[in-house]
Amino acid sequence: MADNTWSRRHIISLEDFTTNDYQTILQTATSFREVLSRRTKKVPALQGQVITNLFFEPSTRTRSSFELAAKRLSADILNFSPSNSSLKKGETILDTAKTYLAMGTNLMVIRHQQAGVPTIIAQEMDRINSGVGILNAGDGQHAHPSQALLDLFTICSSLDKTNPNISLLKGKKVVIVGDILHSRVARSNIWSLTTCGADVHLVAPPTLLPKHFLEAFSQPPKTGKTDESMGNLYLHWQLAPALENADFVMALRLQHERMSEHLLPSLREYHQQFGITRERLNACKPTVKIMHPGPTNRGVELTSDLMDDPHLSLVPMQVTSGVATRMALLYLIGGMQ
Amino acid sequence: MADNTWSRRHIISLEDFTTNDYQTILQTATSFREVLSRRTKKVPALQGQVITNLFFEPSTRTRSSFELAAKRLSADILNFSPSNSSLKKGETILDTAKTYLAMGTNLMVIRHQQAGVPTIIAQEMDRINSGVGILNAGDGQHAHPSQALLDLFTICSSLDKTNPNISLLKGKKVVIVGDILHSRVARSNIWSLTTCGADVHLVAPPTLLPKHFLEAFSQPPKTGKTDESMGNLYLHWQLAPALENADFVMALRLQHERMSEHLLPSLREYHQQFGITRERLNACKPTVKIMHPGPTNRGVELTSDLMDDPHLSLVPMQVTSGVATRMALLYLIGGMQ
Amino acid sequence: MADNTWSRRHIISLEDFTTNDYQTILQTATSFREVLSRRTKKVPALQGQVITNLFFEPSTRTRSSFELAAKRLSADILNFSPSNSSLKKGETILDTAKTYLAMGTNLMVIRHQQAGVPTIIAQEMDRINSGVGILNAGDGQHAHPSQALLDLFTICSSLDKTNPNISLLKGKKVVIVGDILHSRVARSNIWSLTTCGADVHLVAPPTLLPKHFLEAFSQPPKTGKTDESMGNLYLHWQLAPALENADFVMALRLQHERMSEHLLPSLREYHQQFGITRERLNACKPTVKIMHPGPTNRGVELTSDLMDDPHLSLVPMQVTSGVATRMALLYLIGGMQ
Repeated sequence: MADNTWSRRHIISLEDFTTNDYQTILQTATSFREVLSRRTKKVPALQGQVITNLFFEPSTRTRSSFELAAKRLSADILNFSPSNSSLKKGETILDTAKTYLAMGTNLMVIRHQQAGVPTIIAQEMDRINSGVGILNAGDGQHAHPSQALLDLFTICSSLDKTNPNISLLKGKKVVIVGDILHSRVARSNIWSLTTCGADVHLVAPPTLLPKHFLEAFSQPPKTGKTDESMGNLYLHWQLAPALENADFVMALRLQHERMSEHLLPSLREYHQQFGITRERLNACKPTVKIMHPGPTNRGVELTSDLMDDPHLSLVPMQVTSGVATRMALLYLIGGMQ
Repeated sequence: MADNTWSRRHIISLEDFTTNDYQTILQTATSFREVLSRRTKKVPALQGQVITNLFFEPSTRTRSSFELAAKRLSADILNFSPSNSSLKKGETILDTAKTYLAMGTNLMVIRHQQAGVPTIIAQEMDRINSGVGILNAGDGQHAHPSQALLDLFTICSSLDKTNPNISLLKGKKVVIVGDILHSRVARSNIWSLTTCGADVHLVAPPTLLPKHFLEAFSQPPKTGKTDESMGNLYLHWQLAPALENADFVMALRLQHERMSEHLLPSLREYHQQFGITRERLNACKPTVKIMHPGPTNRGVELTSDLMDDPHLSLVPMQVTSGVATRMALLYLIGGMQ
Repeated sequence: MADNTWSRRHIISLEDFTTNDYQTILQTATSFREVLSRRTKKVPALQGQVITNLFFEPSTRTRSSFELAAKRLSADILNFSPSNSSLKKGETILDTAKTYLAMGTNLMVIRHQQAGVPTIIAQEMDRINSGVGILNAGDGQHAHPSQALLDLFTICSSLDKTNPNISLLKGKKVVIVGDILHSRVARSNIWSLTTCGADVHLVAPPTLLPKHFLEAFSQPPKTGKTDESMGNLYLHWQLAPALENADFVMALRLQHERMSEHLLPSLREYHQQFGITRERLNACKPTVKIMHPGPTNRGVELTSDLMDDPHLSLVPMQVTSGVATRMALLYLIGGMQ
C-alpha cells in the first residue's frame, strides 16, 4: 500500500525508485484507466499547463501515446520536431530546452538517441529553478522508464485487474529475451521488476548479453532496500532453461542494425535459437503471457500466431496501459510544480 | 427523402451506396454547414472520441480538411506520419493500425498509395470486434469516397443551396475530363453521380481512358437498383462532343508522371486537346459550372481565368463543402459504435 | 497613450506603423502577459476562428510561439507543412492560400523564404473580399514584424514592467550588431525603434553593412511623423565606438552560409571583431542589456557567460514576450474581421 506521497520532479531512470513510488504509480494509473473507460475521457488536471514533446529521436508510437495522455489531462501540447529545427542551425540542446521553457513549458517529455540528455536538461532546469519537470521518453541505451512502468502496470493488471499492486509480483518469473545489451527497455524493466520482487531472467546470445552485463545491477540498490524483498537477476545464453516455469515472457525488438554490426548472423538463425514459438511456451507456466514493447518483427522475435492470440499476448494491453500510465506520470510530476 | 437510417461502420468505396445513403449524407452535411456559419462552430458530437489520421501517403489538403472536421466535432486527433515511423522499422500496416486501436482510437481516416489497404484494415477491425470505423481518404487508384461525396454535396448545393438533394441530379449531364484511368476521384464520382441519376460523360485521350474501362461499371449495381432511375455512363475521346449541353464539367488533376510514362506527349498538347477554356464552354449549358478536386495545374486542366471566375468555378465551394461533408461522414460512422 | 483604435487587417511590415499602433500593441501585450500569469491561461477571444500556419520556410521556434499564442486565444489551428504538400504538385502559393481560405481560415500566419509573399497573399485576400487577416512571420530579407514587436515589448518591459510604453525609448541607444544586410529582424527593428524614439546604431563588417544600406531608411517615414520625435539611425564598421553608452545591445544570428559566400573570413575572426564579450560591454551604460532573436551560436555572436547571465541577458524574456506579443497581434487583427 502506497502512502500516496510523491516527491519527484523528474522521471529519468528507475534506478532509485522505491516500492512506494511504484505503488503510487500503479494506483494513479488505475484511476486514470477508470477515467478512460468513461464516455467523457478528459480530466482538467493539467489545464493551462504546457507539455512540450522534445523528440530529438523520431518516434510515432511513443509520441502519440504521450500526446493522447496529455490531451486527456487537458494540457496544451507543443511538439518540437528535430528536422529543420534550430538544432541544425547550431543551437545547443540546452538552449532549445530553455527556449521552450521561456515560452511557458511546464513539463518536457524528452527522447534522444544519446544517453544522458534528459539528465543534463533536468539538472539545468533545476539549477535555474525553472520548476519544470522532465520525463525521459527514452535516451540512448540508458533508460525508458515510461515503457517499464507501463509494462509493470500491464503485468500487475493481468494478475489482478481491479487492484494491480506490486505484491502480486512476489516470486513471479519474468523472462526478457533479445537484444539486452542495447536495450533501454530491458534496463528499465530490470530495475522496476526486481525492486517489486519479481525474478528476472535475461536471455540472449552472448554478443547481445555479455557476462559483465550483470555488474551494473550487482550493487546494492540505491533505494537502500534489503535484498530479501527484491527479486533476483539471472543470465541465460540459451532459451529453453530460461523459459521453464516462466510467468511472463517479454521479447525485445531486434534492430536490423545488429546484423550489419556482425552481432548476429541472420534473422532466421536468431529466430531458430531465440524466437518465441507456441511449442517453446510449453515449458512455461500454463498461465504464461507474452509481451513486446513494439514495433514487432513478426516471425523474428515471436511467431505471428502468438502475437495475435488474445489469451497469450499482452501486447495490445501494453499499448492501452501506456496511455493511462503516461497520464499518471504526467499528473504526478505535474503536481510537483 | 432519406429515412435517416445509417448502418455503415466504414466508408471505403461507394460501389454499394444507395440513394438513401447519399440522401442521408447530404442532409447531414447541410446541417453541419449551418453549424459552420455560426459564431461558435463546434458541436460536442464526438467529444472524448479519438480520430486517428493514418496517412501513409502524404497529404496536406485532405488531412487538413479531415483535421478541421474532427476538431469541429470536438474529437481528439492523433496524426500518424509515415516518415520515421514504425513502418520503417518493419512493422506491418495492420500492427500499426492495431497499435492506434489499443491507444483508444475510435475512428481511423486512412490514405494509402495502394488500393485495398483501408479494406484490409476494416476487415481486421471487424474480425476482432474492435468497433472502430474506417474512412477511406484515398487508396491507390481505387476510391476516394469523401471527395466524391463533397463533389455531390457541391453539385446539389449549387442547384439548390437550401435543400440540396439527389433528385436535383436527374437528367443532369456531368462531364469528367482528364486522367480517368488513374483517378480514384473519377471512379468514386462515377458511382455516386450515376446512382443519383446524373449522366456521366468521361473524356480523355485513349491512353488515359481505354475502351475496356467501362466494363468495371457495366455490371448491375450492387445496390440492386433498377437501371431506370440510374444515370448512364458515356465514353469520349474528344472533348467537343462531350461538352455539348453539359451542366457540370469536372477536370481531373494531371499527374506529371504521365509524361514520363509516355502516356501523354506534353502538357501543352494535352491542354490544346483537353484543356477547359472559356471558348469551349460555349457548347455547354449557359449555367455550366466547372469543378476540380485540386491541386490544379493552371493552364493545363483549365485556364487560369476560368479557375478564378466566381460565376463559373465551384472549386472554392468544393473545398468549403469538404469540411461539412467530412464532418457528416465522421459523425455518421462515429454514431455506429 | 494609445487611443486604442486599431485599423489594420494585416501585419506585413512596420514601415508605416505609427506610434499609436505600437502603443496599442504594447498595451494589448501587457494585458495578455497578465493572462499568462494566471492559473487558467486561456481566453475565449478567438474561439471558433481558424488560424492557419503557412510556413513555407521551416521553423520550429516561431511556429511553436504562434501556435501557443493561438491556443491561448482558443482558436483552432491548421498547420501547413511544405514538405510533401500540394506545392510540390505544381500548385501556386495563392491557390494554396485560397484552399485554406475556403476551408474556413480566418487568419493566416505566413513565413516564406522570398520577400513579398505575405504581401501578395494579403492583396489577393483583400481583392476577393475574403476578410482574412495576414500576419507576416518572416519573408526573405524583408520583414519580421512579430520579432521586432516582441523586441519592443521586451525593451519597454525591461524599463518599466508594469507600464511598458514607447515614451520610455526616448533618447535610448540601441545597438544592433551582426549581419544587418541579410536580416529581416534588423530591418523591422529599425522601423519600430526609430519611430518610437530610440537611436539605433548598426554595426557590422562592410560586407554585411554596405554604405548605401541607409538609403532605404533615409526617406521621411510614411507615417508623416516629424523627424524631431523620431530616433536617428547610425552606421558603424567597428564595434567599440558603437557600444559607447549603449542601453541595449542586440546581436543578430550569423548564418553559416555567409562564410561560403565569402562575406566573412571565419567565425573566429568575426567573434574577435564583432562578438559581444563582458569586457566590451564595459563601454556601455551600467544598466546595459543584451538581446538576441535566437537561435544563438554561442561563442560567435556573444560569449556563453553573457547569454546565461540573468542580469544582462534579455534573451529568455524575448521568448516569453513572444507569446504575449503574438497573442496581441492575432487578437488585434482577429478583431478586424
